[in-house]
Amino acid sequence: MVEKISTVRIIGLTGIPLVKAGDDLASIILRVAEVNNVKIEDGDVFVIAQKAVSKAEDRLVELDKVKASPEALKIAEVSGRDQRLVELILSESKRVLKASQQTIIVEDKRGLVNINAGIDKSNVEGQNRYALLPTDPDRSARRLRSRITRSTGRNIGVIISDTYSRPFRRGQVNFAIGLAGLDPFFDYRGREDLFGYVMQVKFNAVADELACAAELVMGQGKEATPVVIIKGFRRLTFNEGFSSKALLIDESEDLFKDVR
Amino acid sequence: MVEKISTVRIIGLTGIPLVKAGDDLASIILRVAEVNNVKIEDGDVFVIAQKAVSKAEDRLVELDKVKASPEALKIAEVSGRDQRLVELILSESKRVLKASQQTIIVEDKRGLVNINAGIDKSNVEGQNRYALLPTDPDRSARRLRSRITRSTGRNIGVIISDTYSRPFRRGQVNFAIGLAGLDPFFDYRGREDLFGYVMQVKFNAVADELACAAELVMGQGKEATPVVIIKGFRRLTFNEGFSSKALLIDESEDLFKDVR
Repeated sequence: MVEKISTVRIIGLTGIPLVKAGDDLASIILRVAEVNNVKIEDGDVFVIAQKAVSKAEDRLVELDKVKASPEALKIAEVSGRDQRLVELILSESKRVLKASQQTIIVEDKRGLVNINAGIDKSNVEGQNRYALLPTDPDRSARRLRSRITRSTGRNIGVIISDTYSRPFRRGQVNFAIGLAGLDPFFDYRGREDLFGYVMQVKFNAVADELACAAELVMGQGKEATPVVIIKGFRRLTFNEGFSSKALLIDESEDLFKDVR
Repeated sequence: MVEKISTVRIIGLTGIPLVKAGDDLASIILRVAEVNNVKIEDGDVFVIAQKAVSKAEDRLVELDKVKASPEALKIAEVSGRDQRLVELILSESKRVLKASQQTIIVEDKRGLVNINAGIDKSNVEGQNRYALLPTDPDRSARRLRSRITRSTGRNIGVIISDTYSRPFRRGQVNFAIGLAGLDPFFDYRGREDLFGYVMQVKFNAVADELACAAELVMGQGKEATPVVIIKGFRRLTFNEGFSSKALLIDESEDLFKDVR
């Protein structure tokens, strides 16, 4: 039906078992893809939920085993949050950007500006257990990519995605917090538009757009679809050396500085 | 191949002719869908690029016909922008949030926080012609939806999308600036996760995620694919009464206030 026209397919891999510490996520993904009869092809992008990667890498922490520092106690008081959770947040952060009753926002060790350093509770077993982000999501993505590439012989990309609140807009969307094998941007600058005008600012963060597209089938709760394969996206460059760090922006470069 | 598993398809409608003032966009879309053999089904979401809607609604302005006010002259001096373009920006804005050599950021008349009030030059014919956003993108979306629904008898959604820069992240992504017929959010709050934990914050802006997904086939330049149909997304509620205004957030509610 849609052979002649441009179609991107977002395929949720159903049947991924609950991920445990030490699991070989790449093998699980390839096995489930095979069972579902999803053929891996050149140019496929694997979008993998952060939580699954954190579990495989044993990044779960029991709150009862955390001891709050004096700084954590102070921020726990200001924010009304559990002092042990605050200690965890601090242990994952470079600096605290805001601490109030509403929220704790930090610049985390990876350079991400996020609420609670990306630490959260959902889909983690155990009443007081929280999941931290992978230590180095780009490294996690590179490992997954190299395993998938070796097994299939295909040139593919990997994105590790997480859910983020945003300034100015209500509701959350997914971002790419780690990636391997693909250029996170598609740059229109210097290209011509329909009428030969040379575009000067269009510079799309396609890695974030792919993460958003994946969320449409991923879901956040019982759906349990932590792995999504995106097929047919033609605007990517695939090769080594790309990093999610390119998606982070310095304060000096951030056009929205001082706006709110 | 992928019948049993969850798949969303993002279909770019190729062959949409250049849109002109007064064009009946709904008819054009339905004709091109038919030619491409894309069947319209219940639950389809039509994502339409703002520029196409602005052109059909004759929202193009010749810079030579604009006369700058004293306030525009002042901001033109601070920002180094053309004084007539600044006048256009002011005419579309409630208030200027930032004006510097780097950028002009406003809260526009629709409540959107955007650079240059969303006014831009790309894909607009004529050397000094700029496109303004539709006066009321929700109304534009409602009109398109009602035309498409009447012609097809299908319950569909319409999103009008535009490209936005964001705080904290490099590169641009698409947002939903107008919508009709669909709930812009999917709310997980109160639902259980994999382990029965009741989720407390997850609240996805699926309208923005759909806009991002559409951008993957839409492109920004010569691709000329201003209309995208998304099929198979199961997490939406379709009915009247939803508005893109719900995606806007008050300063008092914005967790990122005072962060940068």
